[in-house]
Amino acid sequence: MTGRVVVVTPNPAVDVTYDVDRQLVGETLRVREVRRRPGGKGVNVARVLVSAGVDCTSVLPLGGETGRWVRSSLVRARVDLAAVEIGAATRTTVTVVDGAQHPTILTEPGPHVEADEWAHVDRVVARVLVGAAALVVSGSLPPGADPRLVARWVRQAREAGVPAFADVSGAALVAAASAGAVLKPNAHEICEATGAPDEAAGAMELLERGAACVVVSRGSEGLVARTPSRTVVVPAVAGISGNPVGAGDAATAGLVRATLAGADLADALRQAAAFGAAAVLSPVAGEADAAVAHSLLDRIPSSHEGASLP
Amino acid sequence: MTGRVVVVTPNPAVDVTYDVDRQLVGETLRVREVRRRPGGKGVNVARVLVSAGVDCTSVLPLGGETGRWVRSSLVRARVDLAAVEIGAATRTTVTVVDGAQHPTILTEPGPHVEADEWAHVDRVVARVLVGAAALVVSGSLPPGADPRLVARWVRQAREAGVPAFADVSGAALVAAASAGAVLKPNAHEICEATGAPDEAAGAMELLERGAACVVVSRGSEGLVARTPSRTVVVPAVAGISGNPVGAGDAATAGLVRATLAGADLADALRQAAAFGAAAVLSPVAGEADAAVAHSLLDRIPSSHEGASLP
Repeated sequence: MTGRVVVVTPNPAVDVTYDVDRQLVGETLRVREVRRRPGGKGVNVARVLVSAGVDCTSVLPLGGETGRWVRSSLVRARVDLAAVEIGAATRTTVTVVDGAQHPTILTEPGPHVEADEWAHVDRVVARVLVGAAALVVSGSLPPGADPRLVARWVRQAREAGVPAFADVSGAALVAAASAGAVLKPNAHEICEATGAPDEAAGAMELLERGAACVVVSRGSEGLVARTPSRTVVVPAVAGISGNPVGAGDAATAGLVRATLAGADLADALRQAAAFGAAAVLSPVAGEADAAVAHSLLDRIPSSHEGASLP
Repeated sequence: MTGRVVVVTPNPAVDVTYDVDRQLVGETLRVREVRRRPGGKGVNVARVLVSAGVDCTSVLPLGGETGRWVRSSLVRARVDLAAVEIGAATRTTVTVVDGAQHPTILTEPGPHVEADEWAHVDRVVARVLVGAAALVVSGSLPPGADPRLVARWVRQAREAGVPAFADVSGAALVAAASAGAVLKPNAHEICEATGAPDEAAGAMELLERGAACVVVSRGSEGLVARTPSRTVVVPAVAGISGNPVGAGDAATAGLVRATLAGADLADALRQAAAFGAAAVLSPVAGEADAAVAHSLLDRIPSSHEGASLP
């Protein structure tokens, strides 16, 4: 592939999955199996990009014993890390599954990151953006973090002529729009951040604020991308069922990878849909096999011709 | 107080408590507040003993980043540690509370501890038993551990003339009985381990196998102790409500402390009930203020005269 992607995960996590016989509120549940892996949306995006042959540098603040575990796990997985050590401990998310009911997900808010630690992250982002081909900022900010941080990273990228993608929510989504990012929120995040009554109105508002493009993943209903001049819709791969956890992050990876390869908007959306479907089919939540994604591309009808992503 | 207590926790844990708005299966729940503390039943017993002025040495296998966290937390809490480093990671337990429904508790099974690591634990137990006044073995064994380990520690203590208390379950409960320990199971654990139809029949079987005494905590219905020759019942402190989590471990601490002070069986049971009630009243789960326990003693009627615990 062409060029290296900088992926910023502002609030990484230890993702823990607990298998139990049956989820019940108010009971003691014996965990049959424990799985742990480094998480946070950006970490998931980077993992899919790396497995698809795309060179990545992961920027993330890490602290405490949990942060140490994330660091050593990512090093073992040969992820290129630009970690910033912080004083507070990296968060954990717990997903409880029983194979019958929907998973229950418990998300810790995340550590308090000090101003001088964010300044350190800023310097690291500026350093690793040199020579990069794209920036991705993905996932929540830890509590108390200034949403303008995301806008600053996006501007740093754009000033360097590097396209920037942001999968963030709340005030950070609005800030990333103003800074000119390609956004990848879901409909709920759009309405929550803009106060708009529906996805279309909210997406228009984000475009008016400056967003280069607003891409919304609608799960089994496909993807829609809006630019100031046009709307492109791509259906999902039909007949796919499996674990949807992490499919949105795989779709982001597909979108970024296709853009790096010079795909136009419609084709990039098709590749995003194919990577999302490959993640649903993957036995491991959030992973996506590039070969599977490639084989699924034929099952996604072409959309009308699109402009290339900015 | 008189003498030092050796407390063995075969399967310690990082106890994590998540406050959520409302527990719901199949939803993403934002954790409002995270509390972490070193856990496992023996760790809880040791903490209550130390806070009540009893000198303790805690023996526990610890591994991984979680084990490192438990170690540093206990060192900060000035607990005298005789930790054995193991290769696998110490487990985590997650308790989810919403202030309305009963807490949901997710218990990881625990690490695989190698045979040579258990041999190391054995040597440490033998070393710290020298000059000790009591042994307590409390909590589950990690998966795959030989239940005869508990019997060996109990025998080591008894051969040194030191009374041994065991709050264990399953095959380890039967093994501890045969080795002559004072047992503190609940009714369910008695029936499960012995196959007896009820608590009384199961307790008799454990006494026949060699248990010095079987003490059962019945929560709000008080405590009952059985020896080969007699049964002593002590009611719970009336009118106490609060958080019952960890009250059983506080009761164990009260029982051990009273025994060290030379109390007879009936009086030791009253002190166990008082410490259990103090734990229910404590704002922090599993802690028990010795002064509160002392003030509650008057509210527990005397039982008939008892023999002193062995």
